[in-house]
Amino acid sequence: MKKTQHLNLHQSKLNTHEFLLCIFGTGDLGRSLGQRLLQSGYKVVYGSRRPHSCGPVPQGAQVMSHTAAAQSASVVFICIQREHYGFLEQLAPQLKRKVLVDVSNNLRKNLYPEANAEYLQRLTPEAYVVKAFNTLSAWALQNGPSDSNRQVYLCGNSTEAKEAVTEIATRLGFSVQDRGSLSAARELEDFPLQLFPLWRLPLRLAFGLTAFFFFYLLTRDVIYTYATQKKDISFRIMVSLANKVFPIVSLIMLALCYLPGVIAAVFQLYRGTKYRRFPDWLDRWMLCRKQLGLLALAFAFLHVLYTLIIPIRYYVRYKIAASTIAKMKENQTSELDTTIAWRSDSYYSMGILGFGLYVLLGITSLPSVSNALSWREFSFIQSKLGYLTLFFCTFHTYLYGWDMFLRSSYYKWYTPPGYMLSLLVPSVVLVLKLLLLLPCVDRSLTRIRQGWERTEPQDDNPSIFVC
Amino acid sequence: MKKTQHLNLHQSKLNTHEFLLCIFGTGDLGRSLGQRLLQSGYKVVYGSRRPHSCGPVPQGAQVMSHTAAAQSASVVFICIQREHYGFLEQLAPQLKRKVLVDVSNNLRKNLYPEANAEYLQRLTPEAYVVKAFNTLSAWALQNGPSDSNRQVYLCGNSTEAKEAVTEIATRLGFSVQDRGSLSAARELEDFPLQLFPLWRLPLRLAFGLTAFFFFYLLTRDVIYTYATQKKDISFRIMVSLANKVFPIVSLIMLALCYLPGVIAAVFQLYRGTKYRRFPDWLDRWMLCRKQLGLLALAFAFLHVLYTLIIPIRYYVRYKIAASTIAKMKENQTSELDTTIAWRSDSYYSMGILGFGLYVLLGITSLPSVSNALSWREFSFIQSKLGYLTLFFCTFHTYLYGWDMFLRSSYYKWYTPPGYMLSLLVPSVVLVLKLLLLLPCVDRSLTRIRQGWERTEPQDDNPSIFVC
Amino acid sequence: MKKTQHLNLHQSKLNTHEFLLCIFGTGDLGRSLGQRLLQSGYKVVYGSRRPHSCGPVPQGAQVMSHTAAAQSASVVFICIQREHYGFLEQLAPQLKRKVLVDVSNNLRKNLYPEANAEYLQRLTPEAYVVKAFNTLSAWALQNGPSDSNRQVYLCGNSTEAKEAVTEIATRLGFSVQDRGSLSAARELEDFPLQLFPLWRLPLRLAFGLTAFFFFYLLTRDVIYTYATQKKDISFRIMVSLANKVFPIVSLIMLALCYLPGVIAAVFQLYRGTKYRRFPDWLDRWMLCRKQLGLLALAFAFLHVLYTLIIPIRYYVRYKIAASTIAKMKENQTSELDTTIAWRSDSYYSMGILGFGLYVLLGITSLPSVSNALSWREFSFIQSKLGYLTLFFCTFHTYLYGWDMFLRSSYYKWYTPPGYMLSLLVPSVVLVLKLLLLLPCVDRSLTRIRQGWERTEPQDDNPSIFVC
Repeated sequence: MKKTQHLNLHQSKLNTHEFLLCIFGTGDLGRSLGQRLLQSGYKVVYGSRRPHSCGPVPQGAQVMSHTAAAQSASVVFICIQREHYGFLEQLAPQLKRKVLVDVSNNLRKNLYPEANAEYLQRLTPEAYVVKAFNTLSAWALQNGPSDSNRQVYLCGNSTEAKEAVTEIATRLGFSVQDRGSLSAARELEDFPLQLFPLWRLPLRLAFGLTAFFFFYLLTRDVIYTYATQKKDISFRIMVSLANKVFPIVSLIMLALCYLPGVIAAVFQLYRGTKYRRFPDWLDRWMLCRKQLGLLALAFAFLHVLYTLIIPIRYYVRYKIAASTIAKMKENQTSELDTTIAWRSDSYYSMGILGFGLYVLLGITSLPSVSNALSWREFSFIQSKLGYLTLFFCTFHTYLYGWDMFLRSSYYKWYTPPGYMLSLLVPSVVLVLKLLLLLPCVDRSLTRIRQGWERTEPQDDNPSIFVC
Repeated sequence: MKKTQHLNLHQSKLNTHEFLLCIFGTGDLGRSLGQRLLQSGYKVVYGSRRPHSCGPVPQGAQVMSHTAAAQSASVVFICIQREHYGFLEQLAPQLKRKVLVDVSNNLRKNLYPEANAEYLQRLTPEAYVVKAFNTLSAWALQNGPSDSNRQVYLCGNSTEAKEAVTEIATRLGFSVQDRGSLSAARELEDFPLQLFPLWRLPLRLAFGLTAFFFFYLLTRDVIYTYATQKKDISFRIMVSLANKVFPIVSLIMLALCYLPGVIAAVFQLYRGTKYRRFPDWLDRWMLCRKQLGLLALAFAFLHVLYTLIIPIRYYVRYKIAASTIAKMKENQTSELDTTIAWRSDSYYSMGILGFGLYVLLGITSLPSVSNALSWREFSFIQSKLGYLTLFFCTFHTYLYGWDMFLRSSYYKWYTPPGYMLSLLVPSVVLVLKLLLLLPCVDRSLTRIRQGWERTEPQDDNPSIFVC
Repeated sequence: MKKTQHLNLHQSKLNTHEFLLCIFGTGDLGRSLGQRLLQSGYKVVYGSRRPHSCGPVPQGAQVMSHTAAAQSASVVFICIQREHYGFLEQLAPQLKRKVLVDVSNNLRKNLYPEANAEYLQRLTPEAYVVKAFNTLSAWALQNGPSDSNRQVYLCGNSTEAKEAVTEIATRLGFSVQDRGSLSAARELEDFPLQLFPLWRLPLRLAFGLTAFFFFYLLTRDVIYTYATQKKDISFRIMVSLANKVFPIVSLIMLALCYLPGVIAAVFQLYRGTKYRRFPDWLDRWMLCRKQLGLLALAFAFLHVLYTLIIPIRYYVRYKIAASTIAKMKENQTSELDTTIAWRSDSYYSMGILGFGLYVLLGITSLPSVSNALSWREFSFIQSKLGYLTLFFCTFHTYLYGWDMFLRSSYYKWYTPPGYMLSLLVPSVVLVLKLLLLLPCVDRSLTRIRQGWERTEPQDDNPSIFVC
């Protein structure tokens, strides 16, 4: 029956090149959608409570009572707010076997116990409800697809109803992605409300770390110099200070991106099973590793640019000229120190290689790239190359520090230089990772991850390693 | 009936591992496709007007008359040019219930009133016409999918026919995207003909601006110096001049990317409604904003590289050495000017932050990234962060200019320096945007965008603001 | 019948919000999957050989005999290793009309003559076998989708069965891509085993070239200096030497990316047909052009960074200061040499423009970007702009060399400088490409690519050109 009806729809379209659609609601949404449908060659009839005084509708569209409108078409767009869905229960007989397209959104999440589309299905149990179009912007609904509004997600329990809606969406120029049965409606309704949920924690962390290290270094560098030497070097804030804060935050965040994986392994080793869920905080941390990594990459990118403009800065040129003139006057014949040359070149080399790998990690986290990789490939890059990146960047920072940590003059006001603080987390992560790679630990972990369980917790000697 | 037939096809394939396909036409296309089908394990039979003298066909394929070939298979590939479709009308009875795959393309757009596939459907009304494979290159059709030729688009009115073609395409190694009913055929036929349609206007604009500023600055810098001082500084064209033109064009194009949005808002405020279409030029302008922005990013990228190589240029090293020697000789003890240090560092800092955001905007305009964003997220980035980018870059340019505009020596031949011209459009955009953010203007605009209309144009006091 | 059953499933889910699934096998895979299904609101029943001693199953799941479990559900997940599939043949009557989901993977490719899923279908001919979920990591199966594990590929002969599995996958949070009939199962089973198959050859080549040029230049630069002048300049390895090796390897690999296209054209011209397959080595070479190009881009990226840090290196600052002091002392008044200025600036300019185009090529090879391009656009970029990139980079290298090749002092130990070796392949490719663009050669090639064949190989005068 359903099938036949659907094929008839098609037939009628093909024969007459006219396809009648019904819209319930003459508000902004109904009007925008109707305008677009008319432009795409459809005929549109509006259903309204007050067909004769319902406000303007797009030119070419008719307005009828809800009942008459519903009877004239087989697809009905519900452009009404959820609060007013109630009256549709009375219309249920007229909407029997109709495709009802729920395009509604809510103002915030979890406002209602069930999704709008599921509520609509409950009111009209014999209609075929399809959730669709709600993720588009109002602009795209009125004016057609644009770069960021090309994808229409839909879900519903009737395949034929979804096909009918797919056909309409395709005609309007959108491409359609089927998200399954109506139980996915809540997800679709939550989607337009989301504003970078997974980015919040990493962003807060980044801001927090940036602020902390900014004030820490401001105190140690600018204020300390002013307090002890009465010299104002505040002009160094814009570049020199920024270029200390950015790499520090970047390195810490990169390490924080690999720390939860190490902690998870320790949990599994300690518990002797992989079937128990991790604590909530670890789960949430693991879910935002990609975002942590990408923010770390952004800071690294800024660090690279800030480093590369060093030689064109007025201050640097002034200093170099002054130092050349000073050398000239003292008639010094300073020798090239090959140790310094080795160290400074290695330092830059490590930094460049680390940044290169960093960028590679960033590229493979682009959705279209990571989708094209098998997970074996993805985990090779993100884990093996990831740790290599962390190693390069940490080594780069150690080379930068060199023997600075031995000289007491660097501990101004008894505080360690910023770079030392930045080395804490990455060093811990690298050491823990090395421990996990020890053959006997690695063997235990592999067995646990293949499903093996240490079943006797009451064992007298609960060794966690299979050595 | 249709269903049954389709299932039988499947049955036969599963049982015998042989699946017979028919190709009409033994030209290049038919031959390439046949070769590929044979390699993928299908059996191929060609339909030809002159089965005994039709030229070479791939080894293993049979050649028959059109009628005999059509009867032997249930899927027929039409590898004939549209001009010769006529004879298919007589074959219509034999093609009844067959799946006809139209793979044809035209030499240019709008050559015919209807799409080739729709014409084919009209000639053979009882066949199931599917448009497919036409977007692939000849190379991919013959040799299988490659990186850029993996996607097969198809459309047609019969779901079962599309499934049969999907099955074949998947076997050939392609992945399939269904574009809806046969009415999408025109779009699919236009697709292979397109050559960056949305990039043309932005590219022309970029070339125009680049040429204008190149000659403007060539005159002001090189020719002026030669005319007034008889000094040839033409070697500065390759880097110094390029590095003035690129940032100027980049900034102007970035501003032009945000200008149409501001103009659209003014239109909506003035008209008091969002339901009237914008003028055509504005529509076209708005559609190519992404392209404008990406070109601006490309110019900014070149500007960054040209800036970073400054200190390794021969000319710059010569100048710095000369200036150091001169200072030495004059026995000057120049002081570090902290104002200049502040300004130069701020200037670089603004530039770097602006470029960082620029790159972020570029990344989010990658299709796979923008598809993963809700439009709320996308508009946050492209609009809020976009204006921030424009602000940073404009501020960067103002800091570059500093008090240059006060010194008459910079107005060579009564023309303003290039950077001043580049500041015009961005300043206008930023000021207009600030005006639109004024509470009472913003409130009016929001109401209009939510569907409200100012209905009495005959009103005595047609205030456009709801203050 | 099938249809009805499927609709009943849906009905039951909608009515009771409970959906019973069966899992055969209580090993790690079955346990992980069951846990996830339970979390997503399904009911799970396990089928086991020893229902009473089968080891732990997730809380809330039941364990039954295989027969009882199969009868209770309409979808059965086969979480058993292929070696133990045998017993399913006896269960075939109970599995009739059931959807069997094969999630198995093998330890290496080509272990068995047929895909696991095809073997399963042969054992249970009346069941609807669907291959699915095997490309996910164990982590994703247990914990739900993550960034790189969102896509579920499936294939099978029954559309209804695939729909049922799609529904489950969507509920688990995955998005589904249908890969056609069960004949695609082998491809899906090979996918998780692959580790960058197309990258191997290019990576080996890159390592080989890097190693060769590293030792070549180490000998010419560091060892030669030590041997002849007893001076240790080994500190130059980290940056100076690396920055010679990277651009050389990059340029050669970029040229190797365009060489096979040229060779293929020569083959086609010589054979006078496009219908004969290329030799295997050429086919394989052509398939990894994208990977060659991306590796070349990676090396170019490193070259750019290594170049840009030059002026902040300790060694370079030392040299510049020393040279300024030396000039000062000698009281030289060196003049600005505009030829050197032109050459050095052109050299940098070419490099920057070449790198800019390089990056553009890299961006368009991102899957989501190349999918959005018509192949006319793609071939415009990859071919036209690709050759332009090669030309810029080659020209950049020629400008770097300048008249070095004339001076015998550069031929240390009778070996040519590295940059000369790097120019060989690109020069050959550019010259060959120019020859192919000659009107009469181009015309022949175009005709051949449109399907024309030179049919008389016994011709006395086998001219390959249509001049």
